[in-house]
Amino acid sequence: MAYRTTEARLDRDQALRARILDCALLRVAEGGFAALTMQALADDVGIATGSLYRHFRSKGELAAEVFASASQREVDALAAALRGPGSASERLRIGLEQFAARAWHSRRLAFALIAEPVDPEVDEQRLLYREAYAELFIDLLEEGAGAGEFRVEQIGLMAACLVGAIAEALVGPLSPPARAAREAGQPTLELAQVSASLATFCLRAVGAKEPMR
Amino acid sequence: MAYRTTEARLDRDQALRARILDCALLRVAEGGFAALTMQALADDVGIATGSLYRHFRSKGELAAEVFASASQREVDALAAALRGPGSASERLRIGLEQFAARAWHSRRLAFALIAEPVDPEVDEQRLLYREAYAELFIDLLEEGAGAGEFRVEQIGLMAACLVGAIAEALVGPLSPPARAAREAGQPTLELAQVSASLATFCLRAVGAKEPMR
Repeated sequence: MAYRTTEARLDRDQALRARILDCALLRVAEGGFAALTMQALADDVGIATGSLYRHFRSKGELAAEVFASASQREVDALAAALRGPGSASERLRIGLEQFAARAWHSRRLAFALIAEPVDPEVDEQRLLYREAYAELFIDLLEEGAGAGEFRVEQIGLMAACLVGAIAEALVGPLSPPARAAREAGQPTLELAQVSASLATFCLRAVGAKEPMR
Repeated sequence: MAYRTTEARLDRDQALRARILDCALLRVAEGGFAALTMQALADDVGIATGSLYRHFRSKGELAAEVFASASQREVDALAAALRGPGSASERLRIGLEQFAARAWHSRRLAFALIAEPVDPEVDEQRLLYREAYAELFIDLLEEGAGAGEFRVEQIGLMAACLVGAIAEALVGPLSPPARAAREAGQPTLELAQVSASLATFCLRAVGAKEPMR
């Protein structure tokens, strides 16, 4: 019986932990990491702030975990697109378009993940996830080079360039100033423009044959 | 006389502030922002930690100022290269080679500026300085497009892509794991390889005519 009781408590603990993370992700998606305070989160979950600290030692640790789980979803989605059907060039274009569209769909969250100034624990995760994205591009570049579609020499370096280019291309259009301009009805870049220019930049950069569309 | 006394004190204050920043930059250049603690810095300068806080309200504020002054030097150096003689393509290549060489020359500092996980105040500055770099590329891309050298549509977006690609290309080779590999005598990327691949990537991306060398 003692064993079962412990097991049930562990299950409850895990369920509460998962709920905390869900609520935290919602906060970040709505107001960025700036909106993720332990007090507000405890209120959302309906527990005492002290209980939060039983599950996460610090706000930085919690933010890093929210970051990692949201980023893993994006890595998985990009991996699926890059490993789908079509030539390597087509898959690169489709992957980029999908990545941009997903960011556009959750702009606040995307900006938080890519560039919002936040705890160093999140910066650490950013470095790790950028490597995860680079790994995906390394596989695609090797395949495309093998098939004579791309001309790439330092594949690891060029994969890193792609990761940097994609992230930085989105920072501006997703940033708070762009959001303010959009809300004020001022002209801002549309997803289709960002997507097309980003794809052109990346396909050219890896030496894909033109015309690319 | 009262005025002069005040003036002399202000001069002394400014001189001390400048010395603190010099010592802080030295610490970051040798051990990254991780080595920039208020206690160690106060010891370097030869003042009490409390006196440090009279000049900088927090470590984050101090780190942000060190970041900004070191980054401004890089922006100025890149601006000089991009505005030098030669075609837009040549200047882009020269600017990239120079940027990479300067980073290589001060790897620890370059990694600290580009990617070391650190206080959010530094992340804020990173966003601002990435815009400053993008401005330089916007000017060059406009010039190159006008001269028929580059094919770029969304110039602002492509300038951002360049900034991201350059930063991310350097993160790996400058990172602590690469440093450890180098110190252990393992094969690592050389400056010339990084520089050449980065230039190829960027020149192709902006539609510069090949051959590029």
